[in-house]
This record gives sequence, C-alpha cells and structure tokens, in this order.
Amino acid sequence: MQPTAGPTNSLLDVAGLGVGHHQRVGDGWLSGTTVVRCPAEGAVAGADVRGGAPGTRETDLLDPRNLVERVHALVLSGGSAFGLAAADGVMRELYVQGRGFPMGGPGDVVPIVPAAVCFDLGRGGDFGAFPDAGFGVAALAAADGGGAEPALQGSVGAGTGAQVGGLRGGVGTASGVLPDGTTVAALVVVNAVGSAVDLATGELWGARHLVAEDLTGLGHWPEGRWPQRPRPEELRAARSAAEEANATSSVPRSLATTIGVVATDAALDPAQCARLATSGHDGMARAVNPIHTMFDGDSLFGLATCARDAPDQAGVHAMLHTSGEVVTRAMVRAVLAAQTVTTPAGTWRSYLDAFPSAARPPTAPDAR
Amino acid sequence: MQPTAGPTNSLLDVAGLGVGHHQRVGDGWLSGTTVVRCPAEGAVAGADVRGGAPGTRETDLLDPRNLVERVHALVLSGGSAFGLAAADGVMRELYVQGRGFPMGGPGDVVPIVPAAVCFDLGRGGDFGAFPDAGFGVAALAAADGGGAEPALQGSVGAGTGAQVGGLRGGVGTASGVLPDGTTVAALVVVNAVGSAVDLATGELWGARHLVAEDLTGLGHWPEGRWPQRPRPEELRAARSAAEEANATSSVPRSLATTIGVVATDAALDPAQCARLATSGHDGMARAVNPIHTMFDGDSLFGLATCARDAPDQAGVHAMLHTSGEVVTRAMVRAVLAAQTVTTPAGTWRSYLDAFPSAARPPTAPDAR
Repeated sequence: MQPTAGPTNSLLDVAGLGVGHHQRVGDGWLSGTTVVRCPAEGAVAGADVRGGAPGTRETDLLDPRNLVERVHALVLSGGSAFGLAAADGVMRELYVQGRGFPMGGPGDVVPIVPAAVCFDLGRGGDFGAFPDAGFGVAALAAADGGGAEPALQGSVGAGTGAQVGGLRGGVGTASGVLPDGTTVAALVVVNAVGSAVDLATGELWGARHLVAEDLTGLGHWPEGRWPQRPRPEELRAARSAAEEANATSSVPRSLATTIGVVATDAALDPAQCARLATSGHDGMARAVNPIHTMFDGDSLFGLATCARDAPDQAGVHAMLHTSGEVVTRAMVRAVLAAQTVTTPAGTWRSYLDAFPSAARPPTAPDAR
Repeated sequence: MQPTAGPTNSLLDVAGLGVGHHQRVGDGWLSGTTVVRCPAEGAVAGADVRGGAPGTRETDLLDPRNLVERVHALVLSGGSAFGLAAADGVMRELYVQGRGFPMGGPGDVVPIVPAAVCFDLGRGGDFGAFPDAGFGVAALAAADGGGAEPALQGSVGAGTGAQVGGLRGGVGTASGVLPDGTTVAALVVVNAVGSAVDLATGELWGARHLVAEDLTGLGHWPEGRWPQRPRPEELRAARSAAEEANATSSVPRSLATTIGVVATDAALDPAQCARLATSGHDGMARAVNPIHTMFDGDSLFGLATCARDAPDQAGVHAMLHTSGEVVTRAMVRAVLAAQTVTTPAGTWRSYLDAFPSAARPPTAPDAR
C-alpha cells in the first residue's frame, strides 16, 4: 500500500526545492533555522495550523480566497515568536536576487516567505539566544548550495533545540513516489509535548509506518536496522523518568510545537495545498501522542511546484494518503537521527540512548 | 497513562446525556439514526469538521463568535444529506416538550439540534431508503428511555449502514475518568474510505489504545478477549480482497464519513468544546488510515454538560489527551462489535468474520 521512497527519500525529491539549515550550539545556544527554497517562479502553497499555541507569519496570505498563490521560500525556526525574524533575512536576500511577487518596476518584488516557529527558548542555557534575520540568511545560503553538504536531518536547523516527550527531537524527512510518478515528500521539525514512544511497549508510535529506505542515512542509528521493542528494564526506566516529570508538574514544563512542510511536484491550487497539510496532521497524530495540544502550535505548509499536471480525483486521494505517511515516517526518522545533548539547562537523550536495545539485531524470525 | 474507563464505558457516563438509536434493515433498507439527548438546560457545544465531503446542519451556529452556546440534542444519521431531515423530527418533539432556546413567550422555544450525516445510500439495495424526520422522532424516544434497553453499539442507529475499508462499520463508544473525577466520553459512527486494519499485519490500527474494559459488551466478540495478530492465511485473503477492490477502481466506490461526539461533564466554553472535537480527530487518525479524505466528511461535535467546574490548564490538557484516546477506543469497539450483513447490494463482513483468528485465545506469554 505504501508508495516507493524517492531517490533521496527526502524533500529534495521534489525537483526544484532546496533545503538549508543553520544552527548555533554552545555558549548558551541550542537553536537554529531551516529554510525551504522554492524554484525561481515560486511554488503554490497552503497551510493548516492545528495546535493551540502557534507562531506563524504570512499564513493569512495563503487563504485560498486571497490574491497571492505562490511563495518563494518557507522558514521553519526555533526561537518561538522571536524566530519569526529569520524570515526577514530570507526576504532581504531574495529581494536582492530579484525573486518575489512582481510589483511592476524592474527589481520591484516582494518575496513571499511564510514562516512557522517552534519553542526552544532557554534549552541552551540562555533564554535570549534565539535565531535572528542572520539565521535566515545563512540557512538560505545553505539551501542555495553554498558550502559543504550538511546533514539533512537530525539535530540540525530548526530541530537543534527540539525535544519530544523529554527525549531529543529534531528534523526528519521522507518521500514517496506514487505509481504515476508523482512525488510527495515531507520535512518535519519534531518538537512536542507528547511522546513519540508508546510507554506501554517502548516502541515508537510511528515505527509501523516505516519503509526499508527510512532506515538508512540516520547518522548514528545502525544502517538498515528496524527498531525493535526495547527490553523491559529500559522501558521501566523510561516510565519512571516520565512519571517523575509528570509528578513535578501536570502542565508540560514548556511549550513545544511540531512544524513542517509537505511538498509535491504535482499541480495543486492553494486549497489543495492546505488539504495536503491537513492530511499531514493525521500523520503527526500517528507519530506523537498527544499532539495538537494547547501547548503545541503544530503547523504544516503544503507546497506544489506544479512541474507535473494537476492530478485527477484518484490522484488527489493517493496524494493525501501519502501525505500522512511521509509525515509519520519523517517524524520517526527525526527521532531516530537525533543525538543526545547536554547544556546548562539540562540533558535531552536520544531515543537510541534511552532505548539502546531498540537498535539490537532482530532475534525472532518475525521481527522483520 | 490511560484514564480509567467509567462505569458504563460509554457516552452515558456523562450524567444527563441520553443515547437512542433507530434503524431499518431489510426490504431495501440498511440505515438508521442516532440521537444524543442533552439535559433540559442543554449542553455547551462546538464542532470540528475535517473531512472533504461533510454533511452537517447548525455547525455555523456553534462558531464561538456566535450567539447560541447550548444545544438540546445532536443527531448523527445515515442517509447522506437526506438524513439531515432526521433533525426536523427531533426539533419538533423537543418543541412539544418545551425544550429549546427561549424566545420570550411561554412555550416559544427553538430547539438547537446540530446534525452530521454519513453516506450509506444504496447499501440496503434501495438508494431511496434513507432516514427521515420519523427516524429522529424514534431515536429521540429511545434516548428518552422508551422501550426495552437496546444495544448501545455495533450495527445500530447511524452505524447500521456503515462500512470501513470494505468491512462492516458501526457505532462504538468508550469513556475515561480522569484522576480528578472528570469524565470524557465518545460515541462514534465508524464509516470510512480508509481501513481500520493495518494490512501489513492484520491488526486493527487502534487496538494498542484499548483498555481492558473495552473488551466487554461487544456482542459476539468473545468477552475479555484481546484481539490477536491474525493468522497469515487470513491476512493474505484480506490483502487479495483489498487489491481486487482497488483494481476495480482507484477512486473509492462510494463516499463514507466518520461522525460522532466527544462529551464531558466539565464546564467548557464553545471554543474549548471545538478543541475537544479537534483532539478527537487525532483519535480518528490513529484508528483508520487514511482518514479525512476528500470522500469522507469526518465531523465531530464537542459537548460539555458543565455539571462540574471549569478545568484549569492542566485539566484541559488531560481532557484533550483523553479525547483522542476515547475516540480511538470507541472506533475499535465499533469495529469489534459490528456484525456481517448481506443485502441485495452486497456483503459487508465483520472484522471477526474476516479475521476469526484475531479472536483466538492468546498463546504467547507476552500476548497480553
């Protein structure tokens, strides 16, 4: 039922999109910014904001009733509402490049750069160490291919300061290619009040949605290894840690927010892009529980480069189904790729370090 | 992490609510109506409509910016948009009883009766055999306690003509009681294009959310039996059936729609009731995949009787988490309680009949 993963199993499988990360770690810092750069002509976009504490800009512009249909870049950033400033830098750079909504005169363009942010303030030790316009400039440069090839996922960009249910979160990406050749891909910053782990079993909620290609390119996670059900002693330790955290406070200790984008090379209108994002939120619900709480500003963008023809009804149906799948897979990959970090504010362990036995070779014949 | 189920593990655990079903089966019929009756003073309500093909009435009234806060009954019905007529009958009866929004004069009331419908047209053999106002009257009478105790869930009421991914759907209900005594309960009509079964394993997507109390009162499903992973031959047969159905048409052969209500005895405002419904949709995503497609009009109401005090922030958080859980559990219970039916239009098998080995006694020590 699952479509095949694309060649890079990432958002880059949608031709014309670029992804760049910039982050600072240490000296009070643990935050960053991710930019998704669109083709020169822009990409059609929509949004679906479902969490109770969102931080966004330019989402009203994406309402299908409004004028502008295409965006030139998307910004995902740490730094809570302060991080919205990263879009200023991206706008300035795109303006210099002459990329934006044309206003008539030569070079007179307004770059359309919607943004969504997630909460990571203070996780590096300094509450005031949040991304600014310069982070947007640097992440856009990285997206444009300046410098060495950085890691596409894990503890990078907007996922640098991310946590999920007490473990370290991060950036994950995945793609699917439908039988007719249409690509649907997601890039998600996993940062949530809820847990990616089913504490009844220690399994990752979303693991059953993975395909084989999802288990490569995950950094320190063993290549090709399906996550196993962890050993009971690790599960007991995780439950104790969760209970201790809950005992300290029944309100989540800080805001969170999972943000991202679902993109395709098919031709969609803004309303269909928003619907792509809506189905992506179902993928979130399958990867983290609870999700869309009052303390999560969970937001997704839908993006269509329109390089291919518009899908028929059956094509839209397949794309929406795949949207949910690639979001779940991207979120599991983010958690598997994340690395433990310790700052003056605390330690956020990776799933691998909290549940090392999950990465053991399978022993039972039916363990995939 | 899971709250305890309430005494009836159903919507009836929210004191003051009544549930009644009316259905017709045979002679071309396979459809029905379910009414949720509120206390005399009404209940605060909100709604979240997320599917691509909804059929509703009085949902705009529930917008938190609008005047009316309380509703007097909710109608869930088969019959697609024709089934909205069931609410006419409920309104007339409540008017006769003097229950409604007061307009000044004695007996001058307008009963507020939001409704959502699901598609089941033609499943009994006659496209024109759909619920009318009389179905609403009969279901309301059942909710008011007239007649013998009917089955609360399974192939009844608005779930009579329901199907889910080719198996028979139906009505399910479940409740949770938070540590502070607040009850959150759901009643859901499961009728979906997507599947309740993970065709990679044959397991019900939502089964891992069940609690022990969910496995009683399910009719023909063996009392207390946890659903097991079905035997491979049953899984192969189910996959063949699904592939055959897909080969016939890549567009779902008919519209569907999962509808329901999440209710609580806490005091919530209309916006919070809508948020309760929003979290319920996450529970849908965990029970059926895909959900919220363009062919599903998935809609949920949130309902607050306000018998208890308003919750604090932590209380709202716990209620939203529980909303997702009770919706998933109610949906799994609907599928387990459903019974195979054959009409001139076809056969819809129950999960139990499609996967009889899922109900076998556990053999492995860790099989719960």
